[in-house]
Amino acid sequence: MASQEVPPRLMRAIEVNLVESTESVLANGFSRIQAEVDDAFDAFLPVPEDTRARLVEAMRYAAIGGGKRVRPLLVAATADLFGVDRHAAVRAGCAVESIHVYSLIHDDLPCMDDDDLRHGKPTLHKAFDEATAVLAGDSLHALAFEILSDHATSSDPFTRSELIATLAGASGMNGMAGGQMMDIAADEQEYDLHSITRLQQLKTGALLAASVEMGAVLGKVPVEGRAHLRAYARDIGLAFQIADDLLDHEGDESKAGKALRKDDEQGKQTFVTLMGPDGARDQARALVEQAVGHLSQHGKEAALLSELARFIVERDR
Amino acid sequence: MASQEVPPRLMRAIEVNLVESTESVLANGFSRIQAEVDDAFDAFLPVPEDTRARLVEAMRYAAIGGGKRVRPLLVAATADLFGVDRHAAVRAGCAVESIHVYSLIHDDLPCMDDDDLRHGKPTLHKAFDEATAVLAGDSLHALAFEILSDHATSSDPFTRSELIATLAGASGMNGMAGGQMMDIAADEQEYDLHSITRLQQLKTGALLAASVEMGAVLGKVPVEGRAHLRAYARDIGLAFQIADDLLDHEGDESKAGKALRKDDEQGKQTFVTLMGPDGARDQARALVEQAVGHLSQHGKEAALLSELARFIVERDR
Repeated sequence: MASQEVPPRLMRAIEVNLVESTESVLANGFSRIQAEVDDAFDAFLPVPEDTRARLVEAMRYAAIGGGKRVRPLLVAATADLFGVDRHAAVRAGCAVESIHVYSLIHDDLPCMDDDDLRHGKPTLHKAFDEATAVLAGDSLHALAFEILSDHATSSDPFTRSELIATLAGASGMNGMAGGQMMDIAADEQEYDLHSITRLQQLKTGALLAASVEMGAVLGKVPVEGRAHLRAYARDIGLAFQIADDLLDHEGDESKAGKALRKDDEQGKQTFVTLMGPDGARDQARALVEQAVGHLSQHGKEAALLSELARFIVERDR
Repeated sequence: MASQEVPPRLMRAIEVNLVESTESVLANGFSRIQAEVDDAFDAFLPVPEDTRARLVEAMRYAAIGGGKRVRPLLVAATADLFGVDRHAAVRAGCAVESIHVYSLIHDDLPCMDDDDLRHGKPTLHKAFDEATAVLAGDSLHALAFEILSDHATSSDPFTRSELIATLAGASGMNGMAGGQMMDIAADEQEYDLHSITRLQQLKTGALLAASVEMGAVLGKVPVEGRAHLRAYARDIGLAFQIADDLLDHEGDESKAGKALRKDDEQGKQTFVTLMGPDGARDQARALVEQAVGHLSQHGKEAALLSELARFIVERDR
């Protein structure tokens, strides 16, 4: 019996090789899901033939054809582990992305971060106007829950309700919006590494964790079977934010498609200021390897999630 | 058999008398539910001991102790017809109210209606700041779905999911937010009575209709048994908006607790400009009587809903 067991270290090596050998397939997998997300938003957002047209055009401007789709990719890759129908995973992914996109629209407003550029094009309030941007954000917020409460996402009402509880909890005062408030307060507060971590766990981590969780919910994984996925999500959430801080510090604006160096200009505490660029980079990579380690029980089935973890820190936008 | 039947006209007279004779009880019923809504929001919004405190204080400022609570009253009064547990009805009512309150916060922003006064006190962005107002609105939006997806609202996941589908559909681009967009476009568009009716059905009517519908959902009333409730909701929705236009035209600012005469100043088409004040008043009252008529099958059980219909047009704020 014992001789048949593959030592964990070797197993990891096999996995890493598997990941590398299937990289192009995985890359295709990524872009296929990204295209499916665009197609789904296109179908969710038909332009009405009345004066709401401008609102829906604004929602389409923000939701279609931009962004890395990290959150839908996380939902789909997690759901894939449990044989979930791709159509359902893309719908749930679109719901998370809807929340993410609305938060970017509201974040970019003059009274918030006052940004002019997003995904390489004018921010929504620049391309349209502020009132339309507020309403388009609000409408995308509602759309997320319209999508999830629809039978087409899951015929099981318990699954629908659990998806909604997960997403709503991650979006509001105890998740993303709460984190944004802490971020605003950061201007007047000296945050240490502990506080910055907590802030980012809410602001960015909550929605990334919800994406993984929603994949597990779609896969009907019982709560007690999700610990390793939650550990994976926690690690990549932190790695994602460190990568974001590095991008802001040393990225290429033309690739990022948005204004960078904002943290530096505002003298804000970030993972980069607290750990230094090299320390931050090492930390992000260590977190990714740790995250991938949590997936070992899934073997090569987790290739997509592993690749996604690496994509999250190696991205240039 | 026929001699035992009460003629419909007499039945109506009996009902009206019943409503009148129980008015004080009903008034107590209203204020009891209003107090329960405040208590529920107080419990939903504990102030955290970190820099999110300001966000939650802002949510409390907007959500507690203001407003007529028409939407929670509609949920509770409808749910009452079907013997729904009051606790569940108040929770669902708070979810609708959360959406309503967030929409008022965002509506009051400088880039939208730019209002300084709401419920007799400074609007949220005046009392706090614009960024906090955007985030508090967003957080109340999420709170609505946190409340509805919680087992405490209903132990039946199908009911939870149906409540959410109803509320999300009524809030977004095909409901409230869509109506607000039409309202903004009204500055550049000459709307006729048909268009104004459509606009108001979305902007105000959708959420009022959702409130009644959610009461029916909690009562597990099958869709085919809701036609009369939907007819009631449609009529009071329109009556509500006509009353609102009348209030804007001839109300008392100190009672209303907000700026009035805005439609007149902006030269906006409203039910009052299109029908004249007297025509509008007659129309509102006729709609209320028609609404109450739809409830006849419930007899005196519908006293609270009937009284609510009258309250909606006779209010001075």
